Amino acid sequence: MLVDPDSITAAAVLLDGNAVRTPVLDASHWAGGPLGLKLENLQPTGAFKLRGATVAVARLDAATRSRGVVTHSSGNHAQALAWAARAAGVAATIVIPHGAAAGKVAATEALGARVLRADAADRGATADRVVAETGGALVPPYDHPDVIAGQGTVGLEIAETVPDVEVVLVPISGGGLISGIAAALTHRGVRVVGVEPELAADAAEGLRNGVLTAWSPEQVARTAADGLRVTQLGALPWEHVRTMVHDIVTVAEDEIADAARCLALRARVVAEPSGAVSTAAWLHHRAELPAGRTVAVVSGGNVDPGWLAAVLTHPPTPRRA
Amino acid sequence: MLVDPDSITAAAVLLDGNAVRTPVLDASHWAGGPLGLKLENLQPTGAFKLRGATVAVARLDAATRSRGVVTHSSGNHAQALAWAARAAGVAATIVIPHGAAAGKVAATEALGARVLRADAADRGATADRVVAETGGALVPPYDHPDVIAGQGTVGLEIAETVPDVEVVLVPISGGGLISGIAAALTHRGVRVVGVEPELAADAAEGLRNGVLTAWSPEQVARTAADGLRVTQLGALPWEHVRTMVHDIVTVAEDEIADAARCLALRARVVAEPSGAVSTAAWLHHRAELPAGRTVAVVSGGNVDPGWLAAVLTHPPTPRRA
Repeated sequence: MLVDPDSITAAAVLLDGNAVRTPVLDASHWAGGPLGLKLENLQPTGAFKLRGATVAVARLDAATRSRGVVTHSSGNHAQALAWAARAAGVAATIVIPHGAAAGKVAATEALGARVLRADAADRGATADRVVAETGGALVPPYDHPDVIAGQGTVGLEIAETVPDVEVVLVPISGGGLISGIAAALTHRGVRVVGVEPELAADAAEGLRNGVLTAWSPEQVARTAADGLRVTQLGALPWEHVRTMVHDIVTVAEDEIADAARCLALRARVVAEPSGAVSTAAWLHHRAELPAGRTVAVVSGGNVDPGWLAAVLTHPPTPRRA
Repeated sequence: MLVDPDSITAAAVLLDGNAVRTPVLDASHWAGGPLGLKLENLQPTGAFKLRGATVAVARLDAATRSRGVVTHSSGNHAQALAWAARAAGVAATIVIPHGAAAGKVAATEALGARVLRADAADRGATADRVVAETGGALVPPYDHPDVIAGQGTVGLEIAETVPDVEVVLVPISGGGLISGIAAALTHRGVRVVGVEPELAADAAEGLRNGVLTAWSPEQVARTAADGLRVTQLGALPWEHVRTMVHDIVTVAEDEIADAARCLALRARVVAEPSGAVSTAAWLHHRAELPAGRTVAVVSGGNVDPGWLAAVLTHPPTPRRA
């Protein structure tokens, strides 16, 4: 069942004081048109994931909370759940796949969570085993209505801050963020457009063909956008994407780097590659996007310093469109 | 005569819709204490200077406005006046000294201003000559009550956003920003503390000795903080600093780099070296600061990409305090 707007409104109340109401920064003066940036990289954990994790923890019953929460994540959901659990006084165990950025592992441990490492293919099974042992609650990174409702508050805030918004550009990985935003905004007439790396375009292929589609771990591992390497949409996100998302566009690796460079030097904010894909779509694929006042969600800023340093000193990528 | 709080309140009305009401981002979770960051790097021109320039242009009489505005600046005031003039439909001529970051010159020209280059020592005389030729108005970067009132709105917004603020840390160069903030906040009992690079510490020496003090251009040129290379406070700022500023602390070059690195990787924002000095004071000289809830003004983000890239890949600087 799709997440409804009332559930998102209720989630916003749970987030009050527990997540930053992030600004929408105007980028029109350098981006060549009516673009705003929803700066989810300014969340204390550096990404929007704090919203869904906080709502999911808040909606657990007391007995479950006492046994703790468990998840698997490539990084940003890990930190988010660790933060949300600590804030609520709940124990957290996080399974992080090998290959995730080292900084994300350290940050999760610094938040007091127990971290287990596993191969990417085994991450779900490892988390399930911890749940079986502890009796705690699995808080999945995207495939859960409470998580989707929490992420949907990004859309609610965009509508409140930019009442005449017409298009919202959203990175897609497992689909939790775009599902929540679509549930918050499509009934208001806003067109929600997903953005994926060309090298991890399972959702774009799936939407085009009308069938939930998976790519291999080897395929999606090619993109620098480590937060977008999930191999297919979650089942519940797929229902949202299939019915509410206007389109999914794809961006090249050099376009992602160019967008991160522009975000640093023109907007003066740090985006991780996954967080820069929506801006890349605006800068390099505008002809493929619906016209109108647009907000790009800068979903996170937990960047590898070496990657950002290389991007900063790289020459600009010419615009195609 | 000192700028009074009413003039700052009036300036805030002039700025409504013409400058960003920047957020104060909480940094307590990574900065080891109650620190907020006032993100003036998120202004469209990348620095607080837009405030003072906008107020100064708005307060010109119509006849003067028709003849245009003129200034000299190492960069951020240049872009600010160019932006404010364009927004008000006024012609602008900007004298930029040789040695300023190339990006700042290009950005000023892109805003439609006429740019003249001069040696740093001749910048004032060159601007005066343009004023004599055009009959336009000189809008100085800091030594003017309207400019100070405009910069003071930073302080007003801090008080509105963080009502229990006790200490505000402010970069000092010509002294316009700290004068305005002190005029807005000291009468509320807030302690305003200036921060300078050790290599350009003319104001710190002056406050310590009670005498307006100049350093040589060769001395101040040593710091990476190119926005803080003014050789002495302006006359009107000196009156504010002398009477209202609690203290001025100084920071080393490696501490400035470390602060910029932390701002990028923990707060996910880009600061130029001049904008990072206040955070450097908190991170590395906390024992010298008054205790209490603190806001550091991140005054600008117009950074040389190569400098930021080097900072990102440099190991952290150990904390002294």
